[in-house]
Amino acid sequence: MRYIDAFNHFFPKRYFDALLESPSGAKDIGKRVRGIPALFDLDQRLRVVEGFENYTQVLSHGLPPVERLFPADKSPEMARIANDGLAEIVAKNPKHFVGYSALLPMNAPEAAAKEAERVLKNGANAIQIATNANGAPIDEKHFWPIYEVIEKSGRPILLHPSRTRQMPDYPTETYSKYEICSVLGWPYETGVTLARFVFSGIMDRYPDLKIISHHLGGVIPYLEGRVAHSFDQLGARTSDEDYVSLRKSLKKRPLDYFKQDFFADTAVFGGEGATIAGKMFYPLEKIVFASDCPFDPEKGPMYIRETLKLIEKMDWTKEQRDQVYYKNLERITGKVFVK
Amino acid sequence: MRYIDAFNHFFPKRYFDALLESPSGAKDIGKRVRGIPALFDLDQRLRVVEGFENYTQVLSHGLPPVERLFPADKSPEMARIANDGLAEIVAKNPKHFVGYSALLPMNAPEAAAKEAERVLKNGANAIQIATNANGAPIDEKHFWPIYEVIEKSGRPILLHPSRTRQMPDYPTETYSKYEICSVLGWPYETGVTLARFVFSGIMDRYPDLKIISHHLGGVIPYLEGRVAHSFDQLGARTSDEDYVSLRKSLKKRPLDYFKQDFFADTAVFGGEGATIAGKMFYPLEKIVFASDCPFDPEKGPMYIRETLKLIEKMDWTKEQRDQVYYKNLERITGKVFVK
Repeated sequence: MRYIDAFNHFFPKRYFDALLESPSGAKDIGKRVRGIPALFDLDQRLRVVEGFENYTQVLSHGLPPVERLFPADKSPEMARIANDGLAEIVAKNPKHFVGYSALLPMNAPEAAAKEAERVLKNGANAIQIATNANGAPIDEKHFWPIYEVIEKSGRPILLHPSRTRQMPDYPTETYSKYEICSVLGWPYETGVTLARFVFSGIMDRYPDLKIISHHLGGVIPYLEGRVAHSFDQLGARTSDEDYVSLRKSLKKRPLDYFKQDFFADTAVFGGEGATIAGKMFYPLEKIVFASDCPFDPEKGPMYIRETLKLIEKMDWTKEQRDQVYYKNLERITGKVFVK
Repeated sequence: MRYIDAFNHFFPKRYFDALLESPSGAKDIGKRVRGIPALFDLDQRLRVVEGFENYTQVLSHGLPPVERLFPADKSPEMARIANDGLAEIVAKNPKHFVGYSALLPMNAPEAAAKEAERVLKNGANAIQIATNANGAPIDEKHFWPIYEVIEKSGRPILLHPSRTRQMPDYPTETYSKYEICSVLGWPYETGVTLARFVFSGIMDRYPDLKIISHHLGGVIPYLEGRVAHSFDQLGARTSDEDYVSLRKSLKKRPLDYFKQDFFADTAVFGGEGATIAGKMFYPLEKIVFASDCPFDPEKGPMYIRETLKLIEKMDWTKEQRDQVYYKNLERITGKVFVK
């Protein structure tokens, strides 16, 4: 068996140091990650990876996204530093890491498209994008050139939830209180963003765009019945917008996009019912193994261990399990990880 | 077999007429429900129910909640009209309906507590409450006397999602666009509200309060891993609020409230993976059959039929299925529906 972990987080040193020096980074990142050394300390991270046999990671960046932390005149440079930092770690530690996903300065869309071109040429496995760009829906037209570049490369987007957009405006803090925003809000954000990718027409415009949705599709598989029948009735009960025409202009039934056009990773933190529901919702070739390391209570190994356990528990053949463990990711990224 | 449908919607005539005459009702309700006769036309509704053998309903009100449609000086009266309307329909059609759930004027909390007392004395099976009261979190202290009344009665709350609160404030309409607010946002709303019931201390203060969450817990069972491990770390990564003390002050592990203290209905519109995940998450005695009739594409029978089919498909014994079909609801409401 070989296990390639498609989605997990790490801050390369130079980028991390710059974050801590930035005003919002020092406040926000500093306190959040201080207790999770495997998120920024390479030796700690190597030890976590070494704890599992035949296990390697595709490194992704930590959150919040670069556009939250740096203004548009600074974020393109910081994105390059961050991406080159991960590339260097991967190059130096090929036994631990088989590749990395790059981030983009989404508050500077033109620079973002250029950075995407640069890193994809340099070998990045995927582009990590947050579900909103400082609150802006990422399906807005000025982001589309980015998707064009990514589609052309054949590599996937790793879609990561980010702070639910409405929070700062909502006076009673309904959603931010008790950390509800990240615990429940993030998977909702993912679902919202997938829906907006469908209904904005991006999936029709870029049919070869591959989007891997974190946390097994967010909330989508559990809401299958609604996604199917409520979106089939889109516009039937509203009249302010002509959603009936919109629905009819789509090339497929809404449900089919969610089921067949998006990919999903297994990072559900040991949720067995969720894994089964996700497995029933997505075709096998859409599911990739990922742990979301190191955000577990043990700060590194637990979600890897629990996710591997869960995948072993599913009624898949060895060949099917291999698809989930690395073959699907190889096909999606066009790379060969296991020789 | 007997099937008691715990959660489905109907507007009694006098209340419906008043809604259509109110400014917001005419605009909002009028166009939404016009195409679904079984939601307000009793003859149509009776025919839908007659389409299924051994099948009866506990009627609930239609949405939006009364507090959205009438100001506080009017909503208590409208709530009485609505509740007495359902009570009358049930009394006149005992073969079709075994009971009803009452609504409360949540924008007038004192009147709401009184209305709860009145209808529960008059035989209402349950109290239907929306997940927010015109945007206000329903765990705010001035709502607690309502929960005291309901807990004392031994009857349950039917928790129904309502318009996600942040929408009107969010300029880019991220969540309202494409009807995302109801399709994906409602189950999220349910999850948010359950979390707030836990962390506000209501579940500790009223340990016998029974809350049936619509749509099989909203998003909670799919997010089991997060609810378990992320809420276990509540406060570990934030420092603005002392959530560590809050977490330690709770009588149970957060996950245990979600799993053991809430009930859930089966209204997931034919989602098989969701039904399995919900069944794995909740103890059997917490699950009650409900269809959400008549909001399906066929405007009445489809969600009833599909939900019954799904329950038959689960690996439950006949006795276990009977629990889901009516015995759990009998126990939860303290009533006998099947003689």
